[in-house]
Amino acid sequence: MKRSSRTKGLPPGTPIHVGQRRTETSSVRFIDYNENILKINEHVSIEELLKRPPRQTIRWAHLTGVHDVELVQALCKQYKIHPLVIEDIVNTEQRPKLELHDDYIFIVLKTFNLEEEDNISVEQVSLILGPSYVLTFQESTDPILQSIVTRLEKGHGNVRSFGTDYLAYALLDLIVDDYFIFTDSLSERVEDLEDEVIESPTTNTLHAMYWLKRIVAIARRNLWPLRETVGRLYRDPSPLINASTNIYLRDLYDHVIQVNDYLEGYRESLSSMLDTYLSSVSNKMNEVMKVLTVISTVFIPLTLIAGIYGMNFFNMPELTWTYGYSVVLIVMFVLGLSMLAYFHRIDWI
Amino acid sequence: MKRSSRTKGLPPGTPIHVGQRRTETSSVRFIDYNENILKINEHVSIEELLKRPPRQTIRWAHLTGVHDVELVQALCKQYKIHPLVIEDIVNTEQRPKLELHDDYIFIVLKTFNLEEEDNISVEQVSLILGPSYVLTFQESTDPILQSIVTRLEKGHGNVRSFGTDYLAYALLDLIVDDYFIFTDSLSERVEDLEDEVIESPTTNTLHAMYWLKRIVAIARRNLWPLRETVGRLYRDPSPLINASTNIYLRDLYDHVIQVNDYLEGYRESLSSMLDTYLSSVSNKMNEVMKVLTVISTVFIPLTLIAGIYGMNFFNMPELTWTYGYSVVLIVMFVLGLSMLAYFHRIDWI
Amino acid sequence: MKRSSRTKGLPPGTPIHVGQRRTETSSVRFIDYNENILKINEHVSIEELLKRPPRQTIRWAHLTGVHDVELVQALCKQYKIHPLVIEDIVNTEQRPKLELHDDYIFIVLKTFNLEEEDNISVEQVSLILGPSYVLTFQESTDPILQSIVTRLEKGHGNVRSFGTDYLAYALLDLIVDDYFIFTDSLSERVEDLEDEVIESPTTNTLHAMYWLKRIVAIARRNLWPLRETVGRLYRDPSPLINASTNIYLRDLYDHVIQVNDYLEGYRESLSSMLDTYLSSVSNKMNEVMKVLTVISTVFIPLTLIAGIYGMNFFNMPELTWTYGYSVVLIVMFVLGLSMLAYFHRIDWI
Amino acid sequence: MKRSSRTKGLPPGTPIHVGQRRTETSSVRFIDYNENILKINEHVSIEELLKRPPRQTIRWAHLTGVHDVELVQALCKQYKIHPLVIEDIVNTEQRPKLELHDDYIFIVLKTFNLEEEDNISVEQVSLILGPSYVLTFQESTDPILQSIVTRLEKGHGNVRSFGTDYLAYALLDLIVDDYFIFTDSLSERVEDLEDEVIESPTTNTLHAMYWLKRIVAIARRNLWPLRETVGRLYRDPSPLINASTNIYLRDLYDHVIQVNDYLEGYRESLSSMLDTYLSSVSNKMNEVMKVLTVISTVFIPLTLIAGIYGMNFFNMPELTWTYGYSVVLIVMFVLGLSMLAYFHRIDWI
Amino acid sequence: MKRSSRTKGLPPGTPIHVGQRRTETSSVRFIDYNENILKINEHVSIEELLKRPPRQTIRWAHLTGVHDVELVQALCKQYKIHPLVIEDIVNTEQRPKLELHDDYIFIVLKTFNLEEEDNISVEQVSLILGPSYVLTFQESTDPILQSIVTRLEKGHGNVRSFGTDYLAYALLDLIVDDYFIFTDSLSERVEDLEDEVIESPTTNTLHAMYWLKRIVAIARRNLWPLRETVGRLYRDPSPLINASTNIYLRDLYDHVIQVNDYLEGYRESLSSMLDTYLSSVSNKMNEVMKVLTVISTVFIPLTLIAGIYGMNFFNMPELTWTYGYSVVLIVMFVLGLSMLAYFHRIDWI
Repeated sequence: MKRSSRTKGLPPGTPIHVGQRRTETSSVRFIDYNENILKINEHVSIEELLKRPPRQTIRWAHLTGVHDVELVQALCKQYKIHPLVIEDIVNTEQRPKLELHDDYIFIVLKTFNLEEEDNISVEQVSLILGPSYVLTFQESTDPILQSIVTRLEKGHGNVRSFGTDYLAYALLDLIVDDYFIFTDSLSERVEDLEDEVIESPTTNTLHAMYWLKRIVAIARRNLWPLRETVGRLYRDPSPLINASTNIYLRDLYDHVIQVNDYLEGYRESLSSMLDTYLSSVSNKMNEVMKVLTVISTVFIPLTLIAGIYGMNFFNMPELTWTYGYSVVLIVMFVLGLSMLAYFHRIDWI
Repeated sequence: MKRSSRTKGLPPGTPIHVGQRRTETSSVRFIDYNENILKINEHVSIEELLKRPPRQTIRWAHLTGVHDVELVQALCKQYKIHPLVIEDIVNTEQRPKLELHDDYIFIVLKTFNLEEEDNISVEQVSLILGPSYVLTFQESTDPILQSIVTRLEKGHGNVRSFGTDYLAYALLDLIVDDYFIFTDSLSERVEDLEDEVIESPTTNTLHAMYWLKRIVAIARRNLWPLRETVGRLYRDPSPLINASTNIYLRDLYDHVIQVNDYLEGYRESLSSMLDTYLSSVSNKMNEVMKVLTVISTVFIPLTLIAGIYGMNFFNMPELTWTYGYSVVLIVMFVLGLSMLAYFHRIDWI
Repeated sequence: MKRSSRTKGLPPGTPIHVGQRRTETSSVRFIDYNENILKINEHVSIEELLKRPPRQTIRWAHLTGVHDVELVQALCKQYKIHPLVIEDIVNTEQRPKLELHDDYIFIVLKTFNLEEEDNISVEQVSLILGPSYVLTFQESTDPILQSIVTRLEKGHGNVRSFGTDYLAYALLDLIVDDYFIFTDSLSERVEDLEDEVIESPTTNTLHAMYWLKRIVAIARRNLWPLRETVGRLYRDPSPLINASTNIYLRDLYDHVIQVNDYLEGYRESLSSMLDTYLSSVSNKMNEVMKVLTVISTVFIPLTLIAGIYGMNFFNMPELTWTYGYSVVLIVMFVLGLSMLAYFHRIDWI
Repeated sequence: MKRSSRTKGLPPGTPIHVGQRRTETSSVRFIDYNENILKINEHVSIEELLKRPPRQTIRWAHLTGVHDVELVQALCKQYKIHPLVIEDIVNTEQRPKLELHDDYIFIVLKTFNLEEEDNISVEQVSLILGPSYVLTFQESTDPILQSIVTRLEKGHGNVRSFGTDYLAYALLDLIVDDYFIFTDSLSERVEDLEDEVIESPTTNTLHAMYWLKRIVAIARRNLWPLRETVGRLYRDPSPLINASTNIYLRDLYDHVIQVNDYLEGYRESLSSMLDTYLSSVSNKMNEVMKVLTVISTVFIPLTLIAGIYGMNFFNMPELTWTYGYSVVLIVMFVLGLSMLAYFHRIDWI
Repeated sequence: MKRSSRTKGLPPGTPIHVGQRRTETSSVRFIDYNENILKINEHVSIEELLKRPPRQTIRWAHLTGVHDVELVQALCKQYKIHPLVIEDIVNTEQRPKLELHDDYIFIVLKTFNLEEEDNISVEQVSLILGPSYVLTFQESTDPILQSIVTRLEKGHGNVRSFGTDYLAYALLDLIVDDYFIFTDSLSERVEDLEDEVIESPTTNTLHAMYWLKRIVAIARRNLWPLRETVGRLYRDPSPLINASTNIYLRDLYDHVIQVNDYLEGYRESLSSMLDTYLSSVSNKMNEVMKVLTVISTVFIPLTLIAGIYGMNFFNMPELTWTYGYSVVLIVMFVLGLSMLAYFHRIDWI
């Protein structure tokens, strides 16, 4: 990890990569399209980056690997992106946010991936929406936004005929749809844990709850601000966004609210699970203690009786009785039984 | 269950059924009425669906079984409902919400059913209120809205003489009234549990509390947003709603607030019950521990005495005394009694 | 109890009594007064109810027993009260609320009575303030509002010379003053419990805390909305309220805030009491465990020693020593004492 | 204590003393001053009270002992104070508040005194700021405001040259400065408890935490509303307050915020202390249980072995072996040691 | 520590040092610069302090050691700083805040230093931004702001060419960047504790959690108000701040939000860690209890059997049997084994 403290003492606007150390080669893909034309250019060279963008078409430039700070700067230069925005793109510790600039809108959001049992990987996706271009930036080379490329190629839906605002919406929508896959798998784990806590809670259940709680907390921290981000996009539309796109943004906003609702629900479930777990453990200890107490209460007095008749006093008349032994055994038996009966009556066994 | 992640990667506005897998045949019922006329048409055929709606009467179209996506689309086509709205109707994972469109108002809400002990079934009901029509959509074939049909037939109340806004209100009011049946049965269970926790808490009580808490949480998640939904309907009335209907909407709003109040109350009760349960279990363990300690403290020293006089030393003068045995028995008895007295004095027994 | 689910499926505005089943005969009392005249008419007959109200005087009509739905309707008819308001008057499960209508203000609030140890009875009082009349409705025949009658008769204070708004204020003030009696007795119980928890917490303390917590929760649920209700009355004065009355409403508002403050305080006290109780029980269990452990640790090893010299091996030289027995006794004594000393040193006894 | 329920049923504006029963004689002190003159009149007589106040000077009238309701009324009469305000002055159960009247501003606030270990005494101070007078009222005869008298006499600071608003500010500032003395001593106790909880928590620590929590809760209840009170004074300045005084009020507001911040901090500390205490007690119980278990596990099996060779069977070959006894002793020793070693290995001892 | 209660009773605006007692010599450094010139003057003498500030250049005056109240006053005199502001500068118990004065903006904020394991030192930095000057005040002589001096000297970034507002921003940004170093080291400790709680929780873990929680609480108390402080600076820009600087302030605001987000995250983690710790301790106690119970249940009955055959009755036929001893041993063995098998079956061992 490169920590956010790396930027300390540098003049503001100095782009420094913060986040997971990556080794993949960064690359840029251009997609220039309008209703009739579609041109895809993978692995754009530096010279092409610095050429003038085309006039007739919308350009979607997609950069993978924001750790290559020079490449990010080269791409942004053409569109006069502010140095502070570039600094935010390469610093992957941003909160989701929306910044309205004069010529473009800058949006940061996150994608999640549940890795093994107890880990979540978070990736930052930045998006710049301009009048004739959309720039997207992601950390890894995961094909997160691939299905929009497919849709553009096949001409499905409105995406080819509408403007850059609809493309930006479609990209955001895709990322938000991904959250539902994430919440679906969270939901399964929460339900599994629920059954475990009720039926057979173990120490592992406790740890699983802890890690799941942590994952939900991380997701919430990254999704809660999205409410405001998308909400602002839909409520205070900038000139860059057409009225016809607005209804789609409202839909997007509803989805964001819903994901947050789910997370809130998991959080509550996990928290009342923990309470139940604690009560359950106390309950079990109670059961254990009862067993110990019953055993001790039944056998310790009998052991005393046996001890008494094991004493070596010369003058112990009972020892000489013919039925002394049998009587003592019967007394012991009756005493033990009546104690068990008593414990049965008070519902301990 | 069909998960909400199913919609991922599809263009927005693609209607995909999300929710419980259902097998019932979907159907549409038309009720055309005005103050004088009432015509009910069950199981409307596709051709009728695509005919022009009547001019003189109000049409209430009721569709059961939103899993039949084509039927929903066919019904909505006539009224030019936006594809995003259709997508929301067939996706039953919506939060309650209100959307003001140019020509109609779109409302989503939920009904609840307490199944056995620990389960709640939630059904989504969508409603579209237009200038001369009301469309309602529900998941199952349960006759949730039947009593409005009866009221229309019998001409009870204002429903025949007022407009579509009053019909929509009457439908919402019916669903909200249903919540009181739901809260009444919740209330009974909470009171039962209350008595159980105070009188004889068991592990089952703990689990019952957990499940009840979960039911209350689900209901809250689905009813809390209704405050805002109905509140907006009543505070920012659209041209589709007459001033005379507004006072009824305020009444509806009060009911929604009240249901939420009840749920809040159950939640608090359940939460302080859990605290009480935990304290109660600790208390009981304390009692068990006291019994064990009393028994051990009384008998273990006596056993030691018996053990001492069971030793085989040649030279143990007490063993030869005539009253040695009796003295030891008396000493044991007195010692045991005084220990019991001590424990009685410190209130352990 | 008649449950609020009784109203389900009925057209809105159908008055149905919801609440405690009562058998007292309902009755109406008229008090017509101005600065000079005062006429009290107990047990008004139905005919009188339907007569025109007087012109020169202010009429305060007081109805006891809202379960008599016909009587309520008869009284309200004269003043053209909206059916939804009548429905709310006879449904005693309302939250405190304020409704501004064109010709009158409708206010609902609650009175409390602490019955035995662990029960609270809540009664609903409704008030309608019109230009020349005040209507009040209560559930039982308790003389809650009696002292205002006395004040009117004796001409104390401003109540005879001011208008209906001052009368309504005086009635509200009386009910709010009642809350202080209620909080005073709550306060005593909280203090008693406080001492109990610190000095000698028992299971009864736990249950008493639970019930008190519940009473405070019920009171809060019924008093919290009153802040907004009275606050609105004082901040957005309607034409029905004179400016000179406004300062009194502010005073009333202060009292409401104060009662809510008290309740909040009790709630916090009870909640930190429960935490203290739990810690206290754990502490005590710790003490019990220490006693058990000390006893076991001191006596079990000694018992082993006695057991060893109780073995029947032929060749056990110690048994034949003259001072064997005394030595063993001394060893036991010293061992036991040093263990006790050790436990004393680590502060267990 | 005279309870607030005493006022029940009386017409509003009836002054009734509520609060601690006091026996000190009440008295009034007049301080008339301007930049040149200063006249102090202790123990003002009733006749002087009813005389016209002076024209050229500012009068600060200070009344000690609000239980003397007649004296309060006599003082207020001259300045036409509203009966509801007088009622609030003699009722010492007010929350801190600010009331803007036409001719004056009425402010209520509280002072605190930490008495012994676990008690807090709260005193109410009321202040009326008029165009040429300031009236202050306090419950006891404690010289709370004495240092302002000194400042007036010595002519320190701005207090002589500025108007009544600055005097009122100086009085409020003095009381708020007192809060810092209060929070300083709270802070010391919280730190002491912190050390105690970490190092040697006892039952007394628990009770001390409870009482301290209670004191903090009382202080918060009386200081939280002060934020709004002083905030309003500074943000919506009335004509009675000069612009030059406003900057001082902002400073006062900052101090109030800070005191509330401190209290919030203590509350959080106490609450996480309680959690730590509970965990700590559980931890200790765990230790105790481990000792018991180790002792029992080591000695009970050995006792069984001793018991076996204490049996009186005729045919027990081991008993006749020459080294039988030694072998058994060695077996016991080795068994005990290896058990201890095992417990050492799993970190129990 | 000099407590804030020291200021009690003094006229407002009397500067009194509150905070840690320091002995370092206080000193002032002047940096006069514009785009072309840069003059640094360390250890400015009193005479220079009282000279007129230069006209052509921006002056940054930096004072270390606010305990030297006279020096602070001397520096502030030249710029006509209000006495209340001077009082706040030397009182290091301020909350972070922003005050807009007519000629300057006054900002207070804090820096943190994690000392050993469980301690945090907080230092107050005050900043006054005027039209041609920036004054900064800090408590110690730590070179917190050194890197801005370096940047000024080297002419890096915009700092030489922009105005005082940008200098002030750069100083604030430096301090906020420091918070990330602080949160980075907090983050490491939280992760270490996380592993400890899951893997091997001890009493030390508990105390470490307590102290870390306390540090987070202190940091939050000092950073939460910064949101509003910086937010106001960026949203309501005063004439002292150029529009071009505003975008930098928004960036600063984002960083402040992010630091607060981190702290919130640590707080949640620590709180769910404590819950997990408590459950974990209960779990372990359960394990200990099970061991004790198994041992007792297996051996106590066997000890009774041995005790019975150790009794000295004359008539005990079993004793005379040839295989009596072997039979008893086998019975004991089988009994013990079957008990162990039973405990194994119910998963206790």
